[in-house]
Amino acid sequence: MKIQLALDRMTISEAIETAKEAEQYVDLIEVGTSLIKEYGVESISEIKKEFPLKPVLADMKTFDNAAYEFSIAFDAGADMATVMGAAPLVTIETCLKVAEENGKEVMIDLLNVSSEQMQRLLSYTSAVFCEHVSKDEQESDNKTMEKQNKERLPVDRLALAGGIALSSLPMAAEKNPEIIVVGSAITKAANIQEAAKQMYTAWKTIRTGENV
Amino acid sequence: MKIQLALDRMTISEAIETAKEAEQYVDLIEVGTSLIKEYGVESISEIKKEFPLKPVLADMKTFDNAAYEFSIAFDAGADMATVMGAAPLVTIETCLKVAEENGKEVMIDLLNVSSEQMQRLLSYTSAVFCEHVSKDEQESDNKTMEKQNKERLPVDRLALAGGIALSSLPMAAEKNPEIIVVGSAITKAANIQEAAKQMYTAWKTIRTGENV
Repeated sequence: MKIQLALDRMTISEAIETAKEAEQYVDLIEVGTSLIKEYGVESISEIKKEFPLKPVLADMKTFDNAAYEFSIAFDAGADMATVMGAAPLVTIETCLKVAEENGKEVMIDLLNVSSEQMQRLLSYTSAVFCEHVSKDEQESDNKTMEKQNKERLPVDRLALAGGIALSSLPMAAEKNPEIIVVGSAITKAANIQEAAKQMYTAWKTIRTGENV
Repeated sequence: MKIQLALDRMTISEAIETAKEAEQYVDLIEVGTSLIKEYGVESISEIKKEFPLKPVLADMKTFDNAAYEFSIAFDAGADMATVMGAAPLVTIETCLKVAEENGKEVMIDLLNVSSEQMQRLLSYTSAVFCEHVSKDEQESDNKTMEKQNKERLPVDRLALAGGIALSSLPMAAEKNPEIIVVGSAITKAANIQEAAKQMYTAWKTIRTGENV
């Protein structure tokens, strides 16, 4: 029942400031793809340096060149990195291998994965599978978590991402995810710390059935 | 019948030195995904600054957040950028829109695209479609251009990428591509300039039937 804070479309300094505000209420910090493509792996190393005890996920969205991309992410301090589920299986398997060799973890992003490919991915049981409503889908269709497929994937480790807000939490909880990924509901709030605290409290209450 | 020089798995300085050696024999310079993810968009701006008259392609491999990613690539000086054909259509359409607004171009990377998705992509007639044997596929299966699907895609603008060497040129020519993407056959040669010259001469000879 972890909360992953996704940092996107901002500078490295803004990302660090945002994460400091939210730090005590989130379990993982995600260096978003936009930071990595805009600033390179320095975005990962700078953020890890500020939060050495917090697991950091690098949203590499690897689609090829798996060993190289995962190595530079892990060398920069990432504890977990993402590969696209739509990529060739050899790429995903290489990511899993590099992660295992480094004692790190893999998240497989299921964005736009066909049901045929999904079946093949199910054998990678060590990975976290991320059901993902993309930014572009959210912005164009107003597609949200609530409109996602309600079927539960037969995976041990599930993450949910894409426009998660306080209102999405009951629906998200039904899928029993290991991780929920929260971005703008916290990062764009007028009061980041307060938004993170509300998210943390609401999520914990829903998952445990108790107030915290 | 253009040659695109792909620069990957090296520093920005090495990329610039490599491109200088090959410059007169190539038509486009590609800033590889590995450079973008390792060093950020500075890799694009630094390379464009050195080669202001040469078209520069940013291999962004966009899968989401299309407007942001394509904007930072074009702002950094790229003339063309890539989006994954496996991405949601709204993402690809946003890339085409941002490119058009900026007077720039889009290459759709067909790596691991299903035949169903391929049919949908065919309506994007302004894009260059890149048939792509990935690095990971090449390294694991020794898959090469010669082993690719020999069917010709019904597209106006075709690019071919993935392990293209001198020996692949006759097979590549049969598909009548607008662009061939050449990486390590030039960048890892002992004599980069000589390798680029050989590639240029061989490709021109094959395509025109004349020695140059």
